[in-house]
Amino acid sequence: MSHDCSFLEDLPLDGDVSFGESARESHAADWVAQEAGMGVTPDAVVWPKSTADVSAVLEAANDREVPVTPYAAGTSLEGNAVPLFRGVSMDVTKMDAVLEVRPEDFQIDVEPGVMGDVVDETVADHGLFFPPMPSSANLSTVGGMIVNDASGQQTVKYGEVADWVLELEVVLADGTVVEAGSKAVKTSSGYNLKDVIVGSEGTLGVVTRATLELAGLPEQIKGGRAVFGTMDAAAEAVSDAVRSGVDVAKIELVDPLAAEMANDYFDTGLPEGSMIFYEFHADHGVDDEIDFFETILEAHDVTTDEVAGEDRMAEIWRARDELAFAVQQYDPDLEPRHPGDVTVPISRYPDIVRHAKDLADDHDLPLPVFGHAGDGNVHYAALVDPDDADAEARAETVYDGIVEQAIEWGGTATGEHGIGMGKRRFLELEHGAGAVEAMRALKGALDPNDVLNPGKMFPETEQEGGRVDLPDR
Amino acid sequence: MSHDCSFLEDLPLDGDVSFGESARESHAADWVAQEAGMGVTPDAVVWPKSTADVSAVLEAANDREVPVTPYAAGTSLEGNAVPLFRGVSMDVTKMDAVLEVRPEDFQIDVEPGVMGDVVDETVADHGLFFPPMPSSANLSTVGGMIVNDASGQQTVKYGEVADWVLELEVVLADGTVVEAGSKAVKTSSGYNLKDVIVGSEGTLGVVTRATLELAGLPEQIKGGRAVFGTMDAAAEAVSDAVRSGVDVAKIELVDPLAAEMANDYFDTGLPEGSMIFYEFHADHGVDDEIDFFETILEAHDVTTDEVAGEDRMAEIWRARDELAFAVQQYDPDLEPRHPGDVTVPISRYPDIVRHAKDLADDHDLPLPVFGHAGDGNVHYAALVDPDDADAEARAETVYDGIVEQAIEWGGTATGEHGIGMGKRRFLELEHGAGAVEAMRALKGALDPNDVLNPGKMFPETEQEGGRVDLPDR
Repeated sequence: MSHDCSFLEDLPLDGDVSFGESARESHAADWVAQEAGMGVTPDAVVWPKSTADVSAVLEAANDREVPVTPYAAGTSLEGNAVPLFRGVSMDVTKMDAVLEVRPEDFQIDVEPGVMGDVVDETVADHGLFFPPMPSSANLSTVGGMIVNDASGQQTVKYGEVADWVLELEVVLADGTVVEAGSKAVKTSSGYNLKDVIVGSEGTLGVVTRATLELAGLPEQIKGGRAVFGTMDAAAEAVSDAVRSGVDVAKIELVDPLAAEMANDYFDTGLPEGSMIFYEFHADHGVDDEIDFFETILEAHDVTTDEVAGEDRMAEIWRARDELAFAVQQYDPDLEPRHPGDVTVPISRYPDIVRHAKDLADDHDLPLPVFGHAGDGNVHYAALVDPDDADAEARAETVYDGIVEQAIEWGGTATGEHGIGMGKRRFLELEHGAGAVEAMRALKGALDPNDVLNPGKMFPETEQEGGRVDLPDR
Repeated sequence: MSHDCSFLEDLPLDGDVSFGESARESHAADWVAQEAGMGVTPDAVVWPKSTADVSAVLEAANDREVPVTPYAAGTSLEGNAVPLFRGVSMDVTKMDAVLEVRPEDFQIDVEPGVMGDVVDETVADHGLFFPPMPSSANLSTVGGMIVNDASGQQTVKYGEVADWVLELEVVLADGTVVEAGSKAVKTSSGYNLKDVIVGSEGTLGVVTRATLELAGLPEQIKGGRAVFGTMDAAAEAVSDAVRSGVDVAKIELVDPLAAEMANDYFDTGLPEGSMIFYEFHADHGVDDEIDFFETILEAHDVTTDEVAGEDRMAEIWRARDELAFAVQQYDPDLEPRHPGDVTVPISRYPDIVRHAKDLADDHDLPLPVFGHAGDGNVHYAALVDPDDADAEARAETVYDGIVEQAIEWGGTATGEHGIGMGKRRFLELEHGAGAVEAMRALKGALDPNDVLNPGKMFPETEQEGGRVDLPDR
């Protein structure tokens, strides 16, 4: 159903509004929805340039019960920013100012449209960095990272984005501007609104300013790549290393199929086999830590292990860093379906990797496996011929089977991509009916008209408070 | 107003119920409310022994709109567990089982009544510990730590309690049992109910099980005590050390008055002067880190600096660890009033310490200052003669002046003790009217009958949803 968004023209905005088809089409999808032809075109696009703009649009839209779906770089993977019920796409990428750097407090204030790598570039001269940065730092905005509670390769050592957000300015559904959190490094004051907004996928408010915490760049960085005879051995080496308490900053698994894809795409000459990429950050004793780590690799019959300094490492890591693109480009006849990001307690990591590969084999589908192994986080995507309906169905079966098993083992359906459209059906399985009801109550409390990003997160057939019409795409 | 709590006798509970005066009186206050004669006696006390007990009591109380205030060790400092509107005091200390230890995942499952030190003792054999443990580990329960989002001396390195809670089982106001969070180390699945409950001071739900994350005990522990010529020098040394990125695990300030009190109480022979206590945890290079740290101390004209190994350290730290008791016992004619815990960005730490001391001097009150300096966290309590109404009033003025300045500098009214009764008047000053309204909306969504710990957190005169009657104490 389309909505009358002409009210946008009457608002005194600093930013821009467009009803043009190309603007609307370009806000119809994210990375995965685009591939899957699942985009939904909004009725209008607005690019606010200030908190006042965001507030004015939301207040007016809320009065009219017109949906508003926040949008930034569009790199989400679960349709998180797709305007499922049309209405307004609110694109925050023109709010892209670095507002203040306070190196003396390890803090930076940014607007939501600032790209991740801009943060690191801005603070590098002060010897600082933003530790939980996702791999897509140069493609994704800080605002997107926050509302999806993203994480990255270094999360195994430093934690996820939520752990490094101190304070947010947020515009709620009715246009009210609130501050959540504190610039103090800890607080027990009032309810934790900040962590309600983090990971809420634009369904509870629009982030208009963030104070991020930073860390000092480590004095020693060293890492490498180790190859194993079997994928089980590689996965078990990761699990054992993390369980040993070794202070690793990145530890990523790449299975033989993913390695083959990387070789096809980059010609990087990765060895054939299962491998892990790793990196250590320390101010003291990085070699001692790596020595200890290598005893664990040896206990799992590591085949080759190349340790490298910072220069060579960039080369080694390139294959891992751009693996998502390699998977996309592997075979012109095959498309990756629904990239997954289940995360399990680390002791279950070898089990979930094996389960994913076995399920894919059983259903005769190629399924590269990689991801932030040290967190117990697995990425995977079955490759299907889009003209083969049976293969599509089998891919869904495999996908569901992996998520259900992860939840069964105490894990989560999504470690870092969010629920969006794509994982709504698992919300209740993971959290239980009571918790989902409590989440709905929070949504109802903060957005009673269901204006912000409606249709996301909750299983749609049970959506309360209206908007049960299916989208006409 | 008293409430008819006879319904408790009809519930099929495993746990116990008492209407006796001594049981009720012993649940009328916490540490501070006791001192200040501010206890409010509940109408009944229930000691649940299971999640089912908690659920049954809450469901029945919610149906009858009878207040239920969770209670544990009673060590809170803001009246957090005082049943302001009488009703039921729900004492969870009989739910004190360690349910499971999973050293392979660095996890422990406990009931809320488990004491903090029991956690550390239980996991020590596995080489693990609970890093954010408050100083009151042997006096406080895990449940209390969670709902007040406590922190401790090691928070400067490891973070606060919230950072180490993975999953909670929580009973909501209507008796619904929900799980919040995940046993995976990260999740982006649904709204973050876990961090809504953490720090909610028993106003949104009762924690009945917690999965805590643990860390490996460091291989090297070393620390010491440094004395400075002035308090400014000591505070600036702390601020500079933290801003240098030095990897300190504890760094505590003690001002000359607090040192004098410790000497009186323990006869520990602390030097006269302003001092810091510090401790470093590392697997490698602890001596290098301490060497670097000492260059910072020297830049601030440190007078004496004693570095010690683990054995001698226990002795050194005893004075700091039990300082709260020393303050209590200092002078039989004086009582400490309203211990504070403001927290500011670290660059403001010397300023807030100086501000606190100056304000106290201006108002002619002794005010010892100490606390978790590395977090920017200051503890203080004006000492007053309880028969001197003017001194009492001046103490309030000093207290307010410290909190207001901390908020002005981007800090928080409470780093670790919570809002409770005592800091309700600062909630809006710190967070703004819009954020407080959003917090009220969360409360209304999860506890529409205002059954759980009513009257806490929100400024009482504006409390929505009833219960505007003042307590008859």
